[in-house]
Amino acid sequence: MTSIVEPDAAAGHADEMDIDTAAAQRAYELDRRHVFHSWSAQDLIDPMVISAAQGSYVWDGHGNKLLDFSSQLVYTNIGHQHPRVTAAIAAQAATLCTVAPSHVNDARSEAARLIAARTPGMLDKIFFTNGGADANEHAVRMARLHTGRHKVLSAYRSYHGGTELAVNITGDPRRWPSDTGTAGTIHFFPPYLYRSAFHASTEEDESQRALEHLEQVIRLEGPDTIAAIMVESIPGTAGIYLPPPGYLQGVRELATQFGIVFIADEVMAGFGRSGKWFAVEHFDVVPDLLTFAKGVTSGYVPLGGVAISPEIAATFGKRVYPGGLTYSGHPLACAAAVATIEAMEDEHIVENAANIGETVIGPALQGFASRHRAVGEVRGTGVFWAIEMVKDRRTREPLAAYGGSSPEMTQLITEAKSRGLLVFANFNRIHVVPPCNISAEDARLGLAILDGVLDLADGFAA
Amino acid sequence: MTSIVEPDAAAGHADEMDIDTAAAQRAYELDRRHVFHSWSAQDLIDPMVISAAQGSYVWDGHGNKLLDFSSQLVYTNIGHQHPRVTAAIAAQAATLCTVAPSHVNDARSEAARLIAARTPGMLDKIFFTNGGADANEHAVRMARLHTGRHKVLSAYRSYHGGTELAVNITGDPRRWPSDTGTAGTIHFFPPYLYRSAFHASTEEDESQRALEHLEQVIRLEGPDTIAAIMVESIPGTAGIYLPPPGYLQGVRELATQFGIVFIADEVMAGFGRSGKWFAVEHFDVVPDLLTFAKGVTSGYVPLGGVAISPEIAATFGKRVYPGGLTYSGHPLACAAAVATIEAMEDEHIVENAANIGETVIGPALQGFASRHRAVGEVRGTGVFWAIEMVKDRRTREPLAAYGGSSPEMTQLITEAKSRGLLVFANFNRIHVVPPCNISAEDARLGLAILDGVLDLADGFAA
Repeated sequence: MTSIVEPDAAAGHADEMDIDTAAAQRAYELDRRHVFHSWSAQDLIDPMVISAAQGSYVWDGHGNKLLDFSSQLVYTNIGHQHPRVTAAIAAQAATLCTVAPSHVNDARSEAARLIAARTPGMLDKIFFTNGGADANEHAVRMARLHTGRHKVLSAYRSYHGGTELAVNITGDPRRWPSDTGTAGTIHFFPPYLYRSAFHASTEEDESQRALEHLEQVIRLEGPDTIAAIMVESIPGTAGIYLPPPGYLQGVRELATQFGIVFIADEVMAGFGRSGKWFAVEHFDVVPDLLTFAKGVTSGYVPLGGVAISPEIAATFGKRVYPGGLTYSGHPLACAAAVATIEAMEDEHIVENAANIGETVIGPALQGFASRHRAVGEVRGTGVFWAIEMVKDRRTREPLAAYGGSSPEMTQLITEAKSRGLLVFANFNRIHVVPPCNISAEDARLGLAILDGVLDLADGFAA
Repeated sequence: MTSIVEPDAAAGHADEMDIDTAAAQRAYELDRRHVFHSWSAQDLIDPMVISAAQGSYVWDGHGNKLLDFSSQLVYTNIGHQHPRVTAAIAAQAATLCTVAPSHVNDARSEAARLIAARTPGMLDKIFFTNGGADANEHAVRMARLHTGRHKVLSAYRSYHGGTELAVNITGDPRRWPSDTGTAGTIHFFPPYLYRSAFHASTEEDESQRALEHLEQVIRLEGPDTIAAIMVESIPGTAGIYLPPPGYLQGVRELATQFGIVFIADEVMAGFGRSGKWFAVEHFDVVPDLLTFAKGVTSGYVPLGGVAISPEIAATFGKRVYPGGLTYSGHPLACAAAVATIEAMEDEHIVENAANIGETVIGPALQGFASRHRAVGEVRGTGVFWAIEMVKDRRTREPLAAYGGSSPEMTQLITEAKSRGLLVFANFNRIHVVPPCNISAEDARLGLAILDGVLDLADGFAA
């Protein structure tokens, strides 16, 4: 169970899963009749039924087995149906499902202890939420009240959640239809060498120029008006572009210099995804607030939260923190977090993510980049990788325009699925984001399928 | 198990609960070290440990048994640890904890069917969220995009959630520290005869004048700028003041007349609390959007959502609905909803709530109002009642000022607790909000304790 390369074996495998296709058909029909789907035109979708899941695999309603390179929405960090966590959920359900947040419950206390022990620096007070969006909303509220300032700076090419404040802080097209002119949400350009906003050609230049740009934005917006800088430590859905050396340290220094709260959004990057417990560890940086969700329970029960520095916690020592939610520190969710963290620790799942990234995914993707002309760039760490698809490697013209898809991208995703691989795609990118405890064998299997799909993609490229 | 007066018996009772006081002490210490509490000054609280719960009772960390007249935050509508729901959670955990919202899962399909079958009118498309705040945020987004307008009208003396948009729509002091000048959130005066904003002395006048006021606000704000009117069908934390006859019908008519979306917030009032599945049923009104959370799973797993009219759903037929969240329609949460609704149906829990309100709580509270001079007014329905405490019945001076507590109110709450009763209090009010399946015997027991506490309160009143 503790083998570093095959922890997935702990969850067991079921090549043959007994799927009730009639039940799946009924689920599909009821879904079409009664379920309103997120981010969708309701009449134009034909969603897939998922009837079962185990480890790195899911089964659709027809009994087809798919290798899950998406981790659903990049959150099943310990794979599906980890027996230790499902047992912990059942045990907590039998004991104490829920209490109001004002009361102490032992599951929350223990989850807070385990999270605080893993967050960087002294971020050892934990405020729990239901997910990433409300974690980010609360982090901003804390920053505003701590500083007495209002504005929030965040990066273009970012995602911070779907509620109104969170989506206005977001720097991707999901903001556009809900851009309500929320006062004081300002976007700056992040470092992204492949499509540099700073005319840079080296990582060093990109990092330095992006920091100069950020400092200019701070000075021109007025440092005394800025409560927070919020960035994903490694931006996720927006492209998994790793900050170049020195960048996050530079952001940290600018925040300190101007008395601005530095919020690291680790909703997607945290809990092992990057090959560390938290992605900021790669850059030796300690933010003032760190937000998390997804991986903290592998999504088995909804949970998110904010890890808080002593200085900011102290602001709310004698003064009321004016925020909350019915399920803050929900016992069932916190019990799932405890079991998830313990399983990750005992089964060396974070180390597995790092190792798979270094020895399997990284080398394979480098190979794709050299062999497939439709591949513009590959980048990532741990089990957190992006393949940027282009029509032309010289011009870097993307295979789908920013903010949309394209027939070519749709064809690639459909083809992967028909070959047994579930991928996560965004605009012109295919992300390789399997569970952190995927075995080397399964990772190689998925990458081989992807290799074949990229052969098809090469037909779209000049 | 289906007796209408004693459904609580289904969950069994445990007068003696074996409490591990050392574990409770450790939970307390870790909480103080690592947990950041909502709506609190962190150094000024001394939270109670809850170590166990069953039916209408909880046990603290010292083994004291408390009758839960709070339903925690007014959400454990089927009481604690209902065996049917805890079993359903364990079963779903063993089968399929989570899938991404884009995929069909049978728990969500079935939950949507069961909810749609109970919502009024044709509200038969369900969008799932994590809780009430994001349900209200998404309802507003739907209304804005459906109408092409921006403003939201909501009532003073209301609560709609803790995220930035939701708290700015909120009409209670929890909005104040986060009042970010969110564009277009406008508050009007609701009908509230006991402290009438309209100089009315009858329910009929209060209703008519409140509607005239709302129409004036609509006309003066500009009907073509208003996307939605959001009201709690029966306002909850803000005071459980039932809308007088004709009011909600009048709001419905104004919304229709001006092309405004009518959003009924049933986060607290829904799922049996008022003695009906949804509180709007008392008033024979069908909103365009109805939001829910809390009671839908009795809080056993976090879940919320929006029930959507055909017209609004059709707006997003060919056009993308630009909103979502990782856990929309989470299988574990939806399985809890299915079991909760089935248990409520089979055990006649909604009918029990109505019956307990009519035959036990209502008469007892009327008695309090006649006997205790500290009681200004009592009001409610089902298991959803408020006792308004005053220093003077003639002046109606509250026992705690609006927006705060008072030593007197704190003393009453502490006294109730020391006598074995956990109550929900807000400003100068004590709310009587036990589980919907409380037995008549337990309800009478709690009311007898409260009666004694009110004797003490009378000492504070003129």
